[in-house]
Amino acid sequence: MQSLSFDVAHDWLRKLQDAICSAISALDGEASFVQDEWTRDGGGGGHTRVLAGGAVFEKAGVAVSHVYGTLDPAFADQLPGDGSEFAATGLSLVFHPRSPKVPAVHANVRLVRRGDTFWTGGGTDLTPYYPKDQDCVHFHRTLRGVCDAHGSDLYARFKQWCDAYFFLPHRGETRGIGGIFYDYVGVEAAELPAAIRRRTPFALEQRVPLNAAWDFTQDVGRSFLAAYVPLVESRKMEPWTEAEREFQLYRRGRYAEFNLLYDRGTQFGLRTNGRVESILMSMPPLARWTYDYHPPAGSAEARLQDYLRPRDWVSLASA
Amino acid sequence: MQSLSFDVAHDWLRKLQDAICSAISALDGEASFVQDEWTRDGGGGGHTRVLAGGAVFEKAGVAVSHVYGTLDPAFADQLPGDGSEFAATGLSLVFHPRSPKVPAVHANVRLVRRGDTFWTGGGTDLTPYYPKDQDCVHFHRTLRGVCDAHGSDLYARFKQWCDAYFFLPHRGETRGIGGIFYDYVGVEAAELPAAIRRRTPFALEQRVPLNAAWDFTQDVGRSFLAAYVPLVESRKMEPWTEAEREFQLYRRGRYAEFNLLYDRGTQFGLRTNGRVESILMSMPPLARWTYDYHPPAGSAEARLQDYLRPRDWVSLASA
Repeated sequence: MQSLSFDVAHDWLRKLQDAICSAISALDGEASFVQDEWTRDGGGGGHTRVLAGGAVFEKAGVAVSHVYGTLDPAFADQLPGDGSEFAATGLSLVFHPRSPKVPAVHANVRLVRRGDTFWTGGGTDLTPYYPKDQDCVHFHRTLRGVCDAHGSDLYARFKQWCDAYFFLPHRGETRGIGGIFYDYVGVEAAELPAAIRRRTPFALEQRVPLNAAWDFTQDVGRSFLAAYVPLVESRKMEPWTEAEREFQLYRRGRYAEFNLLYDRGTQFGLRTNGRVESILMSMPPLARWTYDYHPPAGSAEARLQDYLRPRDWVSLASA
Repeated sequence: MQSLSFDVAHDWLRKLQDAICSAISALDGEASFVQDEWTRDGGGGGHTRVLAGGAVFEKAGVAVSHVYGTLDPAFADQLPGDGSEFAATGLSLVFHPRSPKVPAVHANVRLVRRGDTFWTGGGTDLTPYYPKDQDCVHFHRTLRGVCDAHGSDLYARFKQWCDAYFFLPHRGETRGIGGIFYDYVGVEAAELPAAIRRRTPFALEQRVPLNAAWDFTQDVGRSFLAAYVPLVESRKMEPWTEAEREFQLYRRGRYAEFNLLYDRGTQFGLRTNGRVESILMSMPPLARWTYDYHPPAGSAEARLQDYLRPRDWVSLASA
């Protein structure tokens, strides 16, 4: 018997949305979020909030949805559990700052049910264009703290999962400096369909009680502002040049490539008649593609490449 | 016995590349093409030419490749013919003009062999941001002329194929005003694998002799400048506003969405270790995503939507 209701989880996510939007709007100081409420034909709907053209944030989107109904058979094979009845509630956010010195960020937390099988997933990852080691260390250390409170192996496992997921094979690089990513917490790994098992070697072996799983996901959601806001505070006043801005737009092209080519949430949403504008809220406000661009050797732009492969940020922190 | 060699076809494509680049460079008047020669690990290589930052063309790429070797088994199922040995030579081009008044354009012609089975494919499609009926009519009328010389049903068939292929299901709109698109000319429809047959109801029923198929594809290649250049000539001096430029960047976001989400050439290239910069040469130089943007009713921007569903441009021309 499951004691956690989707209504309760959805209410909690809406409060988290309020808290995050308030903090981000205050941090921006100029622009505020506009909300769209939408309903889904098959059942449910959502509240999408977007801040655009701010002083700090060129585009910031925070969306909460609660959808339910009947699964597309082609997609059902990709999920644990049985039957075609499902429900899902989640919050997802993507922030694209105006300054190339402030990192972009993504976070997502969700609760999903198929038939009688419940699980949670989530994570957050950081995409700096001019990375500072101390920022990467702060972001990862915050996430390690959240994970450690729930299990000593969680951070290492979910950090690896994040590095593997936010990877662009055609570019041979990660999207940014990672963070954590996890799914199917609440389901025993042995019960996952073979197709999932193959691509998610990091899934927890054991079944976690749903309330413990949701507690963890709530902590991930609660920690987002602590992980990200200090980086914005410390970088938002840094000056930047037009050339640095151009590099940011160029790198945002990679962000667009990841979202459209590989992001499973985007692919799923678009192929199952999700609300397009909410799904593509994550796209960069402006992005550039420059044919065969290579930053000069030794430049700050060339150094970014060193950050686009998995690195042990936590040991660095304690070194 | 096949009398057409890939070397001969490739030489012809290289001469077509010369002719197109000369004409486009002259039309631009400021920038010229830079060539990269590359080799492919599994066999073959190509010549990619890109003009960037021109007066008329913000980015124009014309690539010719000739690749051969062993097919990836996962991809082989998607092709007619037998066995794992293949060869392909083709030219593909995408032009992104600076002015929002000048349409973007794509064209591709190719010759492919798997085992003993040869076929050709190709096409061209136009993506205006502020379309003029007479431009659409000229583009389609030129293509109809090319098709009619080879078969009375070809234009209608390949125009429909183009409308079906360059379609963004999540947006419910075509990429632009279409043109023609075709593949597998040289192969009998009944011999196509079931997976191809399902998604290409427009393939020719009968086998066309390879030389006739290649003659047709050469005519498509030769007609490109006649179809496109007059549109550039007549629109390149038109004034445009910053707001029109912003709309062009916004619409280029859709171009990026098509290329990364649906274009089979892009997907195939990226997933089989093609040369990334040549594959993504087609990406817009600069693109914008604006959350839930809707142009004002009755505006020129709103009217574009009327052009993003299939229309009979040839009958319009004769009306």
